[in-house]
Amino acid sequence: MTGTDERPTEVAGVGPAVVLVKPQLGENIGMVARAMLNCCLLDLRLVQPREAWPNGRAYAAASGADRVLDRARVFASTADAIADLHHVYAATARARDMSKPTLTPRGAATEIRSRIAHGVGCGVLFGREATGLDNDDVARANAIVTVPLNPEFRSLNLAMAVLLIGYEWMQTGSEAAAPAHTRSRRANNAEMSALFAHLEGELDRCGFLRNLEKRPVMVRNIRNLFNRAELTEQEVRTLRGVITCLVTRRAGRE
Amino acid sequence: MTGTDERPTEVAGVGPAVVLVKPQLGENIGMVARAMLNCCLLDLRLVQPREAWPNGRAYAAASGADRVLDRARVFASTADAIADLHHVYAATARARDMSKPTLTPRGAATEIRSRIAHGVGCGVLFGREATGLDNDDVARANAIVTVPLNPEFRSLNLAMAVLLIGYEWMQTGSEAAAPAHTRSRRANNAEMSALFAHLEGELDRCGFLRNLEKRPVMVRNIRNLFNRAELTEQEVRTLRGVITCLVTRRAGRE
Repeated sequence: MTGTDERPTEVAGVGPAVVLVKPQLGENIGMVARAMLNCCLLDLRLVQPREAWPNGRAYAAASGADRVLDRARVFASTADAIADLHHVYAATARARDMSKPTLTPRGAATEIRSRIAHGVGCGVLFGREATGLDNDDVARANAIVTVPLNPEFRSLNLAMAVLLIGYEWMQTGSEAAAPAHTRSRRANNAEMSALFAHLEGELDRCGFLRNLEKRPVMVRNIRNLFNRAELTEQEVRTLRGVITCLVTRRAGRE
Repeated sequence: MTGTDERPTEVAGVGPAVVLVKPQLGENIGMVARAMLNCCLLDLRLVQPREAWPNGRAYAAASGADRVLDRARVFASTADAIADLHHVYAATARARDMSKPTLTPRGAATEIRSRIAHGVGCGVLFGREATGLDNDDVARANAIVTVPLNPEFRSLNLAMAVLLIGYEWMQTGSEAAAPAHTRSRRANNAEMSALFAHLEGELDRCGFLRNLEKRPVMVRNIRNLFNRAELTEQEVRTLRGVITCLVTRRAGRE
């Protein structure tokens, strides 16, 4: 549709195109759109969808990913749908007997990220729900993407297959963007020492550490377990409150 | 259910348990089973499913993953469902304001692979479709798993969330196991629950938790810090000894 010359800039912003070849159910198209938007993919292309387009069931199944459906484009053939793309991957359940590179989603995502960064328009072909891509469509692709899954049970629906490839696409872009901790400040060593002094003082008084031979090991074990928890300063104050409360009530009743 | 001593071998074979907390629709349970079997995960646990179990719609949606549904187990509470597990992850759409490690599916999968190789039973909690996990269930977990996706559109259905974690679990399959821990056996969740019941009982008696409005948050915070420490069963016994000692001496002097 649009000429190749106009694509590179836009493509770099939106990631690979998702091309559904002869999808049967509007609902599945909607679920694909949902999977795509989770992964920041916006370019959905439909080749001869069986149901009329636009499709109400697609919108119902998209859980709000309307912007993907709104800009989805319908094509009369796979050739038309990928005309503006430079590098096309065929998603298949198994490696076909074709002389093509076969990649995992992770390998493909890394490659796509690099290609798009250099202005090379990419897309991934997905076949119809029941039968997958036919050999002619696979032959149009530059490479095959196969998800390494249980060899005795490979049964991904269309949206799941799109999700896994979109997910890997996202991961290549956000490798440094793992969710941040929301924890408050870690306790420093002075605070930890004060906690241990407080606890061990009380344990000496109540007789827990009265075996002087074993005392060093017991103290070390207790310190270990609290050190391992990587306590925040708030948690140290909570623990000191716990100790004080147990002891204060005792004192109050004496 | 089964004792900890019997777990390691079985656990090493089957991967992490998938624990669905209060799933609403049988169809979604079936789609989860399908996602699981693609990823060689077999241990499905259901906490208070809304619909009767076994469920015909689950089987219809499982696309042949019957063996996962056949061995699925139903539990009355999250605590029961994870009693035999040592390390539990909570799948959430966002990092919560809790002091817990937050991992990506990839990070979690690598960690789970290593833990299971050392006989540490692992599971992942998933909340109900509409609302996710509540804070109490998240507090039971040792760590949080969050999928880094489009920050403006995070909308995974239950099966998709399970699929992404299972997929990462599959991808770690060929990697070498990490060096062995020399620590003694991890406490399981039944032992942790008994520790919490003991401690919270004493804290109720001494008045530490007398503010009923704040009580749930305080309990959660205390559980969090001990969960994070990944206690051994020996350490749990030590801590219970500490509590008992502080309290017994009090009683002895009264």
